[in-house]
Amino acid sequence: MEERVREIEEQESRLKTRMARIRHKLAILSGKGGVGKSTITANLAIAFARKGYRVGVLDADIHGPSIPKLLGMRKETLRASQADGQGIVPVEGPLGIKIVSMDFLLPSDETPVIWRGPMKTGVIRQFLADVVWGDLDFLLVDLPPGTGDEPLSIMQLIPNIDGVLMVTAPSELSQLIVKRAIGFTRKLQVPLIGIIENMSGFVCPKCGAEFDILGAGGGRRISEELNVPFLGRIPIDQKLCEDSDKGIPFVVQHAESPAAKALTAVADKTEEYLRNLKP
Amino acid sequence: MEERVREIEEQESRLKTRMARIRHKLAILSGKGGVGKSTITANLAIAFARKGYRVGVLDADIHGPSIPKLLGMRKETLRASQADGQGIVPVEGPLGIKIVSMDFLLPSDETPVIWRGPMKTGVIRQFLADVVWGDLDFLLVDLPPGTGDEPLSIMQLIPNIDGVLMVTAPSELSQLIVKRAIGFTRKLQVPLIGIIENMSGFVCPKCGAEFDILGAGGGRRISEELNVPFLGRIPIDQKLCEDSDKGIPFVVQHAESPAAKALTAVADKTEEYLRNLKP
Repeated sequence: MEERVREIEEQESRLKTRMARIRHKLAILSGKGGVGKSTITANLAIAFARKGYRVGVLDADIHGPSIPKLLGMRKETLRASQADGQGIVPVEGPLGIKIVSMDFLLPSDETPVIWRGPMKTGVIRQFLADVVWGDLDFLLVDLPPGTGDEPLSIMQLIPNIDGVLMVTAPSELSQLIVKRAIGFTRKLQVPLIGIIENMSGFVCPKCGAEFDILGAGGGRRISEELNVPFLGRIPIDQKLCEDSDKGIPFVVQHAESPAAKALTAVADKTEEYLRNLKP
Repeated sequence: MEERVREIEEQESRLKTRMARIRHKLAILSGKGGVGKSTITANLAIAFARKGYRVGVLDADIHGPSIPKLLGMRKETLRASQADGQGIVPVEGPLGIKIVSMDFLLPSDETPVIWRGPMKTGVIRQFLADVVWGDLDFLLVDLPPGTGDEPLSIMQLIPNIDGVLMVTAPSELSQLIVKRAIGFTRKLQVPLIGIIENMSGFVCPKCGAEFDILGAGGGRRISEELNVPFLGRIPIDQKLCEDSDKGIPFVVQHAESPAAKALTAVADKTEEYLRNLKP
């Protein structure tokens, strides 16, 4: 028992040391699933890396890890290192982005992660304390849907988290769940940087007509109702889905598309928020 | 301690008695969020109720409950009853569908459910053991994303669950996560009735051109690869989203649309599966 307590204290201290070397820690949250949290995380990572920042991505979606696929790094594995303080070495992705994900630890595509909360908290603690993140400007944490063990552990474990980027789809149903997630950040007193509305409107590539397939204006509405900055709307773009499936960074590949410009603008606004925060 | 053990045993016994009065128990799972599990659950409930069955829906998405909104029953509350065995009375929705959801217990739209696993398991146990479900032909359980506490608790707590309906979006990313969810059902030895591909193709209402916005054929592909029956593809339909936001049953309101027909066909195939199962 005494030994276990010492182990936990040591891990806690390693976590603090590692996190102190990362300038900004941001979490991407929604509450709702399937609104594009992981796609946005991956593309923001690319956008920040292109600005010359050193970027890491922690995929905290333990059951449904998507970041390796989105960044074209599937079938890689995490390995242990003796250098730079003993620890787990992140996979190095495009533009030197450091990635840690459950996906790197699973033997096959059909392997489910049938874990209850405490096990998930344990692995998240390890991903923070025992990974050789090194010196980074940004650590982006991609959170799973819900406001349970994983988001709660991230918010409680990371000291001085800079803030949360909240993602919603335009539908009312999505807004309802995202409002609860905003309640979550307020309850935990974590700064909310702003709201991103994803999957917002579809322009027919053939005739140019625009349709609000999944509703319209939900992000803006929440932003006004709950007094949270609005960071932009990202339209539905078939190429974004295609690039994501291929593991190609959409913000680079289709940089001139409205969706890529909206994603880059979110990176710009986040940068500005942080600049004003720490002069 | 002894008293706590007795309480648990009594709850266990109530759970068995209640569940014995429900002919078929089905769970709607995906692993992935935002693929339309709740929308499909709500519409299947309506489809079964229209066939004359007595239907209940258990919304097991504790953090992001959507069923009350989808069935037009928000702002209702659960109440206690002394009749029919003391217990919680489900809200009665359209066509007499009995509904239980966390949404009925939350004071406001911004109230987050910041619960770790054991608390979620506790409330799910209560929803099964202490709700006056009465005699039902179908209990549909809408599960949250992931393969953690909630799905695990449902599979372990409901005796003789008839099977799982697996929902996927067409994208490769979605397939990847859904494959793990299929691994979950196999590991737990729960029958998998089949796969539904949702959000499959979009027909431009103006020019008629069809686009695979979120990819194509993912459901069929998993079905062949992992040898699981394919129950149909449901196209993207803006009216489905609009009806969902309004709490109107889409399968009735737009019964002649391809999406509604596909949803009804899933109900038919499930009925057939169960008929062959219990002659």
